[in-house]
Amino acid sequence: MRARDLAEDLPTVGPDDDALQAAQLIAGERLPAIAVLDDGRHPVAVLRASEVLRFVIPGYVQEDPSLARVLDEASADGCASELLGKRVRDLLPGPDRKVALAVVDGDATVVECAAEMARLGSPLLVVVDGEQVRGLLTVSHLLEVLLPMPDSPAGQPRGADRRSPR
Amino acid sequence: MRARDLAEDLPTVGPDDDALQAAQLIAGERLPAIAVLDDGRHPVAVLRASEVLRFVIPGYVQEDPSLARVLDEASADGCASELLGKRVRDLLPGPDRKVALAVVDGDATVVECAAEMARLGSPLLVVVDGEQVRGLLTVSHLLEVLLPMPDSPAGQPRGADRRSPR
Repeated sequence: MRARDLAEDLPTVGPDDDALQAAQLIAGERLPAIAVLDDGRHPVAVLRASEVLRFVIPGYVQEDPSLARVLDEASADGCASELLGKRVRDLLPGPDRKVALAVVDGDATVVECAAEMARLGSPLLVVVDGEQVRGLLTVSHLLEVLLPMPDSPAGQPRGADRRSPR
Repeated sequence: MRARDLAEDLPTVGPDDDALQAAQLIAGERLPAIAVLDDGRHPVAVLRASEVLRFVIPGYVQEDPSLARVLDEASADGCASELLGKRVRDLLPGPDRKVALAVVDGDATVVECAAEMARLGSPLLVVVDGEQVRGLLTVSHLLEVLLPMPDSPAGQPRGADRRSPR
């Protein structure tokens, strides 16, 4: 089994797509990250959900974090507006902060995928066959493949500790 | 709206729980991370799915990554065995590598939660009321709250670019 066999058909965005819509897509589909592909379908970046958060935090809070405490929920309205008019490319690290692209070849073994994902600490890998993006591989899917999953609801391990935090 | 209002009832594990079962839980429920709570229900750590991957990679591959390429899928069988006999505590960073605990107070505003999640780059926050764990907050849920979500299937934004990678 190789990376191309595990690649899933998950939504992607382009660098010029609307940043708010991309963030809504990540939230609505509960994606750990989203792949950014250029018009030529080449991977540009993998944008993590936690990285998007940086851009929804109102500027005045970034300047003075203590303000976040005194703000009521109305301040949350300001978060979406932080993304208004922005493009996906505006959420990507600048040339000064080059980030390794989370990409693996379609021929990569599952162990290679795991090693690369662990090395980058990325929850998502872009699987490419040459120049062509084959699909996406999430850390959850990779763990499902690497580990024997019990035949129980939601793959919950038999006897697993499921203590509720509440 | 405060952190305690957003806290979800997600599964947690204890430091002495079986590492393989914890990894299966993360994979089966597609969790971005899992909260580790001690017997007193106090947060010990937030273990990310990508961090778990480090421990399922066979030792001989960690010593010689090039081996991963030549191994066939049978090698994946070795991944689960890497976790056999291990406890959750064995997957946590040692005292030499102290990691900031991804915890917020139940009174934290949504903007505070976003700022802390972005600062730590954590996909999961443990919400506590004093000593008591109130629940968990995922980055996806927080983005859903912070952003206006369109009333469309899976919260997919109207007109969002959903180009398929295939």
